[in-house]
Amino acid sequence: MAELVRIAVDAMGGDNAPGEIVKGAVESVNSRGDIRLVLTGREELLRAELGKYTYDAERIDVVHCEEVIETAEHPVMAIRAKKQSSMVVGMNMVKRGEADAFVSAGNSGALLVGGQVVVGRIKGVERPAMAPLIPTEKGVALLVDAGGNVDARPSHLVQFAQMGSVYMENVVGVEHPRVAILNIGAEEEKGNALVKETYPLLRECPGIHFTGSIEAREIPHGGADVIVCDAFAGNIVLKLYEGVASTLISKVKEGLMSSLRSKIGALLIKPALKKTLKEFDASQYGGAPLLGCRGLVVKMHGSSTAVEVKNAILQCVLFKQQGINEKIMEHIG
Amino acid sequence: MAELVRIAVDAMGGDNAPGEIVKGAVESVNSRGDIRLVLTGREELLRAELGKYTYDAERIDVVHCEEVIETAEHPVMAIRAKKQSSMVVGMNMVKRGEADAFVSAGNSGALLVGGQVVVGRIKGVERPAMAPLIPTEKGVALLVDAGGNVDARPSHLVQFAQMGSVYMENVVGVEHPRVAILNIGAEEEKGNALVKETYPLLRECPGIHFTGSIEAREIPHGGADVIVCDAFAGNIVLKLYEGVASTLISKVKEGLMSSLRSKIGALLIKPALKKTLKEFDASQYGGAPLLGCRGLVVKMHGSSTAVEVKNAILQCVLFKQQGINEKIMEHIG
Repeated sequence: MAELVRIAVDAMGGDNAPGEIVKGAVESVNSRGDIRLVLTGREELLRAELGKYTYDAERIDVVHCEEVIETAEHPVMAIRAKKQSSMVVGMNMVKRGEADAFVSAGNSGALLVGGQVVVGRIKGVERPAMAPLIPTEKGVALLVDAGGNVDARPSHLVQFAQMGSVYMENVVGVEHPRVAILNIGAEEEKGNALVKETYPLLRECPGIHFTGSIEAREIPHGGADVIVCDAFAGNIVLKLYEGVASTLISKVKEGLMSSLRSKIGALLIKPALKKTLKEFDASQYGGAPLLGCRGLVVKMHGSSTAVEVKNAILQCVLFKQQGINEKIMEHIG
Repeated sequence: MAELVRIAVDAMGGDNAPGEIVKGAVESVNSRGDIRLVLTGREELLRAELGKYTYDAERIDVVHCEEVIETAEHPVMAIRAKKQSSMVVGMNMVKRGEADAFVSAGNSGALLVGGQVVVGRIKGVERPAMAPLIPTEKGVALLVDAGGNVDARPSHLVQFAQMGSVYMENVVGVEHPRVAILNIGAEEEKGNALVKETYPLLRECPGIHFTGSIEAREIPHGGADVIVCDAFAGNIVLKLYEGVASTLISKVKEGLMSSLRSKIGALLIKPALKKTLKEFDASQYGGAPLLGCRGLVVKMHGSSTAVEVKNAILQCVLFKQQGINEKIMEHIG
């Protein structure tokens, strides 16, 4: 049997906790034999949720945590003050080697801070980066960084490119992933100070397949596999993806209700439209890894439901079994 | 009769020049009596195009220009070297007061450079900014800057907010436009160094209605009327809008062709879908003004057709007759 992967799951984080988190956890355990989970959170709540399902009780433990870090809390303060929270307890398990990975749909900022100060960085990594997969016409692309490094340095971006390449190649299965830097034009002389300094470093960086600049317009068309940027730009890309897609969809739906003719048409196209929109929904990809942490920390969308929780957990298995962190160390150490 | 507005039109710039440019110019002149145009470009070509239409010949002049600045040319070099180009000649007319405005679908970078070095800035304005209107669920929002200031300073962003407010109020007709700064979270302590420094300055700035930070997700939902950012971020927003929308639309169309059922549905919804997508198409709004220049310079999309050319010209009329630059001077001077 494949190596057992032990994953701590923050059962209290996110809009649908603990119900959907517990459900997704059970589904993941029932889907393959090499997962062992620890749910962190209020024990009585979690036991009640677990009681609804059939699963191998040996493979899901519960660790009671009195506290929960709320969405609106200040990240640094929350991580410092709430040592007994479902988030800090889970991250400490990764730190002590009791778990290989930690997944949470809770406070993003706290997760980023905790990844750095509780779990800690891989030796040689200057800054961990949050790397969500975003949908494109051709599949998915990895956006690094969409996390905490809003005023990143060129050397950070080079490491993001290295870590992102390892991830795309080994977890997503893209051979020789094309790495591009997010820019405002295709030419090398374009860009802000950060991009201009980073560009030549990426061109000279061994072990990655750097293809130059990518304009934001080309991201959805699948112009690169790994898109490197500071977290300010990455956050804009990630959030605008969501915003434009949801606005456009609601406008299309509104338009379809405007006449009897289009209403009938709408009924006929509903299944096809639903399938298409699902393909273009970032949440199905199972959370964003915090690349560069010792162990693995995965951030799930706050609105995650059971299917995303399950996917996030399965992603952790692949991450561990493919030895992503060992490969990152080979490149960066 | 209202004050006559004289507009120089670069008839050689853009993918559809000179045909669509000339057509749009004629349509604008035929639509109202207070416009007088000068087309810059190769005279024989332009006369041949003009010969296809009926219009008041007194109101469209042609100024022959031997040169054309191509899309791929280096902006600074092109503006310096090609004094006889349709772009530089048109901008010089604005500089000398022979035209109130100049519109072009040509090389964006050259237009930005020319706006600064040929036309020149309004006294007190530190940096002109390119301000496209982008579609939202509630109408449109103005994005400032999406042009050349990729490493902007806080004081630049404050002026962008002031100029953008004047524009939205007087050209678009939004009372007390809501100004927000593009950010990665709603709280004041969030953001990169530029945003953190700019935020308190905007809060204290008189004459604008500052509402705080806006996340990229909220832009398409209509969360602000004027969105202030550096041009690197602005370019990402503008280009990603285009990219996500076009990808999503092509995926929806593909999905509709997947079964007989959905194909029939697609026929029924086609008119409604077309109308919706048109509403969400940024190009209909008639070009982006370069705010802060003496006179007015308007950048049209490279793929502009006659209708966008006409809208850009009509926008110039409003800009001039509403005294936008005088109002900007009141705020900034």
